[in-house]
Amino acid sequence: MAEIVPPGISSSDFDRAMRECADIVGQEWVLTSQEDRDGYLDPMAPGDAASHAVAAAIAPASVEEIQGVLAVARNYGFPLWPISAGKNHGYGGPAPCMQGTVVLDLKRMNRIVEVNEELGYAIVEPGVTFFQLFDYLEANNIKLWLSPPAPGWGSVMGNALERGFGYTPYGDHSSMQCGMEVVLPDGEILRTGMGGVEGNRTWALFKHGYGPSWDQVFIQSNYGIVTKIGIWLMPEPEATASVRITVPNEEDLPQLVEIIRPLRIGHTINSSVVIANAVRRLAATSTRNEWYTGEGAMPEDLLRDIMQRNKWNFWEVSFAIFDSDEVITARLKEIERAFSVIEGATFDVTRWRRGEAMEKSARRVPNLMAYQVLNWRGGRGAHLGFAPVVAPTGDDATRIYNLMKRRIRDFGFDYFGGFTFFQRHAIHTSLILFDQSDQQMADNAHRLFDTVVREAAEMGYSEYRSHVSFMDLVADGYNYNGHALRRMNERMKDMIDPQGIIAPGKQGIWPAHLRGRRA
Amino acid sequence: MAEIVPPGISSSDFDRAMRECADIVGQEWVLTSQEDRDGYLDPMAPGDAASHAVAAAIAPASVEEIQGVLAVARNYGFPLWPISAGKNHGYGGPAPCMQGTVVLDLKRMNRIVEVNEELGYAIVEPGVTFFQLFDYLEANNIKLWLSPPAPGWGSVMGNALERGFGYTPYGDHSSMQCGMEVVLPDGEILRTGMGGVEGNRTWALFKHGYGPSWDQVFIQSNYGIVTKIGIWLMPEPEATASVRITVPNEEDLPQLVEIIRPLRIGHTINSSVVIANAVRRLAATSTRNEWYTGEGAMPEDLLRDIMQRNKWNFWEVSFAIFDSDEVITARLKEIERAFSVIEGATFDVTRWRRGEAMEKSARRVPNLMAYQVLNWRGGRGAHLGFAPVVAPTGDDATRIYNLMKRRIRDFGFDYFGGFTFFQRHAIHTSLILFDQSDQQMADNAHRLFDTVVREAAEMGYSEYRSHVSFMDLVADGYNYNGHALRRMNERMKDMIDPQGIIAPGKQGIWPAHLRGRRA
Repeated sequence: MAEIVPPGISSSDFDRAMRECADIVGQEWVLTSQEDRDGYLDPMAPGDAASHAVAAAIAPASVEEIQGVLAVARNYGFPLWPISAGKNHGYGGPAPCMQGTVVLDLKRMNRIVEVNEELGYAIVEPGVTFFQLFDYLEANNIKLWLSPPAPGWGSVMGNALERGFGYTPYGDHSSMQCGMEVVLPDGEILRTGMGGVEGNRTWALFKHGYGPSWDQVFIQSNYGIVTKIGIWLMPEPEATASVRITVPNEEDLPQLVEIIRPLRIGHTINSSVVIANAVRRLAATSTRNEWYTGEGAMPEDLLRDIMQRNKWNFWEVSFAIFDSDEVITARLKEIERAFSVIEGATFDVTRWRRGEAMEKSARRVPNLMAYQVLNWRGGRGAHLGFAPVVAPTGDDATRIYNLMKRRIRDFGFDYFGGFTFFQRHAIHTSLILFDQSDQQMADNAHRLFDTVVREAAEMGYSEYRSHVSFMDLVADGYNYNGHALRRMNERMKDMIDPQGIIAPGKQGIWPAHLRGRRA
Repeated sequence: MAEIVPPGISSSDFDRAMRECADIVGQEWVLTSQEDRDGYLDPMAPGDAASHAVAAAIAPASVEEIQGVLAVARNYGFPLWPISAGKNHGYGGPAPCMQGTVVLDLKRMNRIVEVNEELGYAIVEPGVTFFQLFDYLEANNIKLWLSPPAPGWGSVMGNALERGFGYTPYGDHSSMQCGMEVVLPDGEILRTGMGGVEGNRTWALFKHGYGPSWDQVFIQSNYGIVTKIGIWLMPEPEATASVRITVPNEEDLPQLVEIIRPLRIGHTINSSVVIANAVRRLAATSTRNEWYTGEGAMPEDLLRDIMQRNKWNFWEVSFAIFDSDEVITARLKEIERAFSVIEGATFDVTRWRRGEAMEKSARRVPNLMAYQVLNWRGGRGAHLGFAPVVAPTGDDATRIYNLMKRRIRDFGFDYFGGFTFFQRHAIHTSLILFDQSDQQMADNAHRLFDTVVREAAEMGYSEYRSHVSFMDLVADGYNYNGHALRRMNERMKDMIDPQGIIAPGKQGIWPAHLRGRRA
């Protein structure tokens, strides 16, 4: 008998439902053992991972099998949490919001449906990872470049659907998505945009079609199961430049932001710009106990001392430019002129031209190097991300930086962070690194997160994504007109998924019969 | 007593409803006289304008007045067709889909709510026109440039909501929209994206917020009344180049398209590229009867003769580049190299640097010059646009060009057209120019449109917008999975607007009680 079951369903009914699902997807793809189910716990849970434990996982291989599983779910009334690769680390990994949800694991649907080199796009199923797509492009000598996020083992689709980002001109992944196939909760197959026209060749080229454009409503929501997306890929540029700029003082932050803003809005820099502090650099190549073994946050004096010994400036700015070689030369002149107004700024540029060794290029190859930082606190390294959206102004950057740095230190963590700049907005990124095997530290991480979400919200800042444990908390911050946005989201939920089958609680959207579970 | 009333409402009830609306917006803003109502007919109707005649028009001045009018509309059950400036010419102008609809004229809501020069955006109400916003920027010496569509008297919001386009790097207007305030049919006020957070400063900077992103669902639909939008504006560039390239032969079209595609995808050309034929050029400066007074389409021999006499090549390509002066120099070299492979190509470049006379710049100043072409056939000049979305490949361009040219000539019109290229898609643009006072010619225009929509659909092409008379016809072409997209659109309609108050029939979306009216 099942040990954990979804709310409102008996163990015996649930077992029967799983047998019916096994008839559809095959016995080996209905995963109900303790060991199987543990594989869907959040490996970086800030607190009690079991509070998001799953009742089972089902791995269909096709749209038809998804439709079959949905029919069983509607019949018995159990919820499904769709995942693609399940690597959404820091945000819950494969774990659902609500304990007892059944994971719908789409890893077997990993077809690269189409890659069009001349028009620069791919159409992929949920299970296609950045590694897989990269290998495919290499093997077929297709000159399109990926925009992988920091760790490359995740799903191309999953990352876009969670509004993930990368470090190329195509780095705002959900904005590079074009065209979608969705299985609706009632089993209907919808193709959005130009996919609505049989035989049309612009499904992955023109985002909007005729009438309302639905793609962005199926992103970060629970209205359907996305089974295909178009994603734009960048044609190999003639040249690249990888740029690293440093400035000496903590107080340079507002001026730095004021310099970056017009360069991003005007596309002088055509990819994401990252500002990082010293801890972010330290954690990439060392562990904390090499520097400090005392209580609480690393003392600021010690950090200054380390920076001095390494001859490091306070802030490191990094970005890349992708263009023709001649244009890059012109851009770099303008960029150096702009940053040089900060006394003590340093410049380091690595250029690459087509034909040269790829190692020098700014092409992003999917990897897992980003996980090095997890070892910072030792033990079972984990992280929790806090990433509010901010206006790219010196004032805003200073305000959120001061809040976050103070609170992170108050709770005994080291401020590991900075900003990532897109065309007109910036994300304040701060990774809360902790040792999951240290219960007190994990609890502290949880409490810290809870505190900064509330305090940032009071200052008018809010996140664009969140860990499954905090989805309601973040949604609460969207408070205009008595949470009108949440009412809209839940009206849609009640209409499109009246039984509340898909991903209850995702992004704070609950189906009617579970709305009492809102935190 | 009202002469035309909405379906299902008596004349006396309708009169009473209008009196209640007058109590809300003021008597002078409830327009019911014949003369007033005629002002809302389509001035370019391809056929019987009266089939879209309105019962009345109401012009509220605020969100609160809109909420009041909506309450009356729900109580009596009459439909409202929201318009901003009503200049959507070629697509119906201010006229609604369904005869007897009441126009909700939002021209009085014309506040420029905010212009942020450093972050490059404006927040505007529906009635703000390109002329008005241009004047505001000039008067306040704000160095942001507009992307007006061909004629500049329209509404900035209306144009974005209908997926209009312009000729700058910000030319895909609905993609430059960021943040929205919408009054829902039940009177609820929704702010999308980061507007959901009280006091947040990124409403017009980050498009998506947290959870599903709704803006694109309120574009080209009938789910609410949009009362504010954020729109991104381009900071004045350091320099511009206006480029005109011509190539000699009709048969050069596919090669031309193959050259343009990578230049657009790679942003070598950072604004829309227009390909035009000779008629398009002729109509800008002359009328047809200066060249031809015979029956049917202008003979091809004559056109060739005119081109020869003027020393015109067959195709004219025009676009502009906006960047630093040094980068433009590099871009132009690359562009000239790319087009030079076509024998007989000519190049004409006008450059401008900041500080020089604005007349030489590629800045677009809103104007009405585009309407010159309406005189082509004499009489009461009108046009009907047919604009399918096509993949930017030589094959696709040739296929749609051959179909359109043949059919347009078959029906006795001159092929006035070409293509507009965006980053990954192109729009085939062909203006069907006719004399509205010539009933036979107007009927022909109507029949031609009907024919090409069907034939293009069979080839897998479909439009992204359409005239109110053809909204159902175009929606029919979105036929994947038995019109799944239309079912989705109408499920949403039934949920958000169960009484079918807002814009029945728009983009083929009908409320349940009027679904029998689908053409």
